Amino acid sequence: MSPRADPNDLLQGTLAILILKALLPGPAHGYGIARWIEDTTEDVLRVEEGSLYPALRRLEDRRWVSSEWGLSDNNRRARFYSITAAGRKHLRNEATVWLRYSQAVTRVLRTAPAIG
Amino acid sequence: MSPRADPNDLLQGTLAILILKALLPGPAHGYGIARWIEDTTEDVLRVEEGSLYPALRRLEDRRWVSSEWGLSDNNRRARFYSITAAGRKHLRNEATVWLRYSQAVTRVLRTAPAIG
Repeated sequence: MSPRADPNDLLQGTLAILILKALLPGPAHGYGIARWIEDTTEDVLRVEEGSLYPALRRLEDRRWVSSEWGLSDNNRRARFYSITAAGRKHLRNEATVWLRYSQAVTRVLRTAPAIG
Repeated sequence: MSPRADPNDLLQGTLAILILKALLPGPAHGYGIARWIEDTTEDVLRVEEGSLYPALRRLEDRRWVSSEWGLSDNNRRARFYSITAAGRKHLRNEATVWLRYSQAVTRVLRTAPAIG
């Protein structure tokens, strides 16, 4: 199914843009990113550590995210992630693609005859 | 990323519900299914034969779709696919999951601060 050939790409791409979006307000540590996504979606989306940290590593490899050590609210050393200028640009492009794709699927599902 | 563990499942699941939705109005051959999805989404989604026929085979394996030979509009022999009662039930459930998921991602993308 086009656009965006590989299914894995699309889903990893979705997690990537959720993470990048979570970093727009400012730097955050991994736990904060996961919490923000869960809170914003009222727990519809849950982000497991097992997918979050590999995704953050891929985002750093591509220079869409940078990171440095800092102190969390409860004074623990934690890695803080920031979105880069390239990351903002990627987010802008991919969010557009994603919204277009999901609107298309939604349109199919809502087209008559009704599913219910 | 939850819900629905495996990324491949989710994307294959999306193609599955698009196909099942395309069959709600009545039986159709493969080309007709692909055309209907493309027309309904104004070509935002394109369905390649290479993913359509394996997806139809999986849907038949699960008894969500049945098929039989028939004649197309231009009098060619073609395999016609129909949605089964179990297929309708699956479509109902999965469409709900999909809409919930995509609304959650959309909410994240639209939350302040704006991406643009």
